[in-house]
Amino acid sequence: MSLSYDDALALDGADPLATYRKRFRIGDDPVAYLDGNSLGRPPEATLQRLRTVAEEQWAGRLIGAWETWVDLPVDVGDRLGAACLGAAAGQTLIADSTTVNLYKVLHAASGLRPGRTEIVVDDTNFPTDRYLVESVAADRGLTVRWISPQLVAGVTRDDLGAVLGDPTAVVVLSQVDYRSGALLDLAAVTAQVHDAGAVVVWDLCHSAGVVPIALDAAAADFAVGCTYKYLNAGPGAPAFLYVAGRHLPAVRQPIPGWWSASDMFAMAGTYEPATSIRKMLSGTANVLGISAVDEGVELIAAAGIDAIRAKAVTLTELAVALTDAWLAPHGVEVASPRDAARRGAHVSIRLADAAAVTAQLIAAGVVPDFRNPDMIRLGLSPLTTSYAELWTAMDTLRGIVAGLR
Amino acid sequence: MSLSYDDALALDGADPLATYRKRFRIGDDPVAYLDGNSLGRPPEATLQRLRTVAEEQWAGRLIGAWETWVDLPVDVGDRLGAACLGAAAGQTLIADSTTVNLYKVLHAASGLRPGRTEIVVDDTNFPTDRYLVESVAADRGLTVRWISPQLVAGVTRDDLGAVLGDPTAVVVLSQVDYRSGALLDLAAVTAQVHDAGAVVVWDLCHSAGVVPIALDAAAADFAVGCTYKYLNAGPGAPAFLYVAGRHLPAVRQPIPGWWSASDMFAMAGTYEPATSIRKMLSGTANVLGISAVDEGVELIAAAGIDAIRAKAVTLTELAVALTDAWLAPHGVEVASPRDAARRGAHVSIRLADAAAVTAQLIAAGVVPDFRNPDMIRLGLSPLTTSYAELWTAMDTLRGIVAGLR
Repeated sequence: MSLSYDDALALDGADPLATYRKRFRIGDDPVAYLDGNSLGRPPEATLQRLRTVAEEQWAGRLIGAWETWVDLPVDVGDRLGAACLGAAAGQTLIADSTTVNLYKVLHAASGLRPGRTEIVVDDTNFPTDRYLVESVAADRGLTVRWISPQLVAGVTRDDLGAVLGDPTAVVVLSQVDYRSGALLDLAAVTAQVHDAGAVVVWDLCHSAGVVPIALDAAAADFAVGCTYKYLNAGPGAPAFLYVAGRHLPAVRQPIPGWWSASDMFAMAGTYEPATSIRKMLSGTANVLGISAVDEGVELIAAAGIDAIRAKAVTLTELAVALTDAWLAPHGVEVASPRDAARRGAHVSIRLADAAAVTAQLIAAGVVPDFRNPDMIRLGLSPLTTSYAELWTAMDTLRGIVAGLR
Repeated sequence: MSLSYDDALALDGADPLATYRKRFRIGDDPVAYLDGNSLGRPPEATLQRLRTVAEEQWAGRLIGAWETWVDLPVDVGDRLGAACLGAAAGQTLIADSTTVNLYKVLHAASGLRPGRTEIVVDDTNFPTDRYLVESVAADRGLTVRWISPQLVAGVTRDDLGAVLGDPTAVVVLSQVDYRSGALLDLAAVTAQVHDAGAVVVWDLCHSAGVVPIALDAAAADFAVGCTYKYLNAGPGAPAFLYVAGRHLPAVRQPIPGWWSASDMFAMAGTYEPATSIRKMLSGTANVLGISAVDEGVELIAAAGIDAIRAKAVTLTELAVALTDAWLAPHGVEVASPRDAARRGAHVSIRLADAAAVTAQLIAAGVVPDFRNPDMIRLGLSPLTTSYAELWTAMDTLRGIVAGLR
């Protein structure tokens, strides 16, 4: 494949999302940032919003600003639901971390299937998901039923078919695998899990904001995800949590607080949970963090998730093609699905000396993400990643792996 | 009592902490802010730090900044421990919300006393604490043993003596009552709980940063608290959590994640918890929030907790004296302990029409905190509350309650 830097610039010139890159604070260093799937770049609007919240709302209105802030977890949750999750209002919250949210949702989900004894999870899932499933299963007297999918293919219908059954209470899956980028068919898998009488908890960390998601249309049950990747809400920004409205009356979550009470300001002697999605809240809202999520969601909504997905496909196709053309001769393999329809927005490559190559890339101003022991993730965040940036990264990689030979 | 505005100004002139007020962003409105025990005012250094974290670290270093951020929960925890908690390094974290931390610590504490069946908590405690105790007790098959202390006096030795015994696993107490301001003797109560073979979980929300606390010296077991009151870390800033080092090897917390694993970047197949205080972590650190806590702690450390306590005593003594002199004739009662040694840094008053009076106060630029149904809290935050501010608030209150008659 022949692609010059000028060709890449031409692709940027024709990119309908190109103007969005200008809405982020982007300096000269690094020259190529392919780690927006770990920590997205800061939108200018977010930096401004943080200043406004701190210097105008907090400093200026003090306790009175809680009038503005108290509904942020629900309001921004609704906006995220509309822009990114295909979720009608009243089912999504911005709160806590993905870990805490997944913990709450795992308990809530398990409680919906009393008598069933197994939680299904794949051993390629993100460590936190696996650790939490083991912890919650132990505390509830349930058994963990492991799936061992082939990493690049991701969890298949057959993998699931082999384990789903009458004992299955809950299935926990990542829509996009954090290593290979394998993208599951959320609707089809949800239906398969439902056919077994179980409920599904979706981890959307690597898909929210970059893959169109239709939770309501798929009749999904629960979902969680983070906001500092494709939603660009900043380091440690609060996560999201989705509970299908039909489940809300029955679910119980284990970490109640005054924020989850039916009347939080009554501070009643007896706990009565809210009937709305607020019942899933726990402590005081992280105002700065949720405000940053709000701005990230606004950008996704403005650009449109379908346009974002289209660019993600084009970027990943290019990354795969350039890997084949420029890197494969030096022993580098694509470790992501080759079918774009089955791939999220990052492409992983597998190579010898991956750690050393990563260090050389970073020294050259190209920032990817190293995954132990032999994988490099190329994260392509459509609102900020330019074709020129991808070209520079691949060209630098080509130089490094050629030099290693 | 005769105290003119000029007298109050003279008190400010003689206040060794007066200069600290200048280190906060304080506008002209409200004229008196007595709600720093709900949401403290923003330090200038914190506003600057937030800008630095967002605009230099996040925007400038992107994923590379995690090198700086990854130890923040422990490092800022250590600094908080040293400045405010009397806690040696390695026992304190900044993470999550008070609610989530209390949940984790309740599970950890209960697990230390297998075979014991009761968690003791007082029914005057903050709603979240009560709700969580009920939730955790239900999940662990334990019974809640309620204490019903007299509100103003707070939990007494006799209250505890009546319930502590062989069944007691855990006792949960607030060091300073959120309504009356009653201050417990942390060392004496801890010893009494230990004599019964139980462990104690301290909620320090209304004492951290304003009351000298000596967790290690008292051989306390567990503690949690928030940072947006006297620590001035901003709305929804992350909370803290303390586990005595001697308990660390044995405790298990229910919400593991990659941040609590012994080697977080190994992303191992099998969960092995960290042996350090990191074992109590869950998800990704809230970087902006912890950074704000760091600045709040720095101010407390610079001013010195003893000097802060001394001013808190003087301010609360004045609030009590002015209530007696100016408001009692109009039917207003002090609803806080009269002995400063048994009182935190807020003074509560009880009056008819408390809600209406609060509304009039706020309209007059004086911000207190209304507590349903008949209580107003006057929060006195020594680093920012001036004597002139307190005078103005009390004088305004005098005018309002006199007019109601």
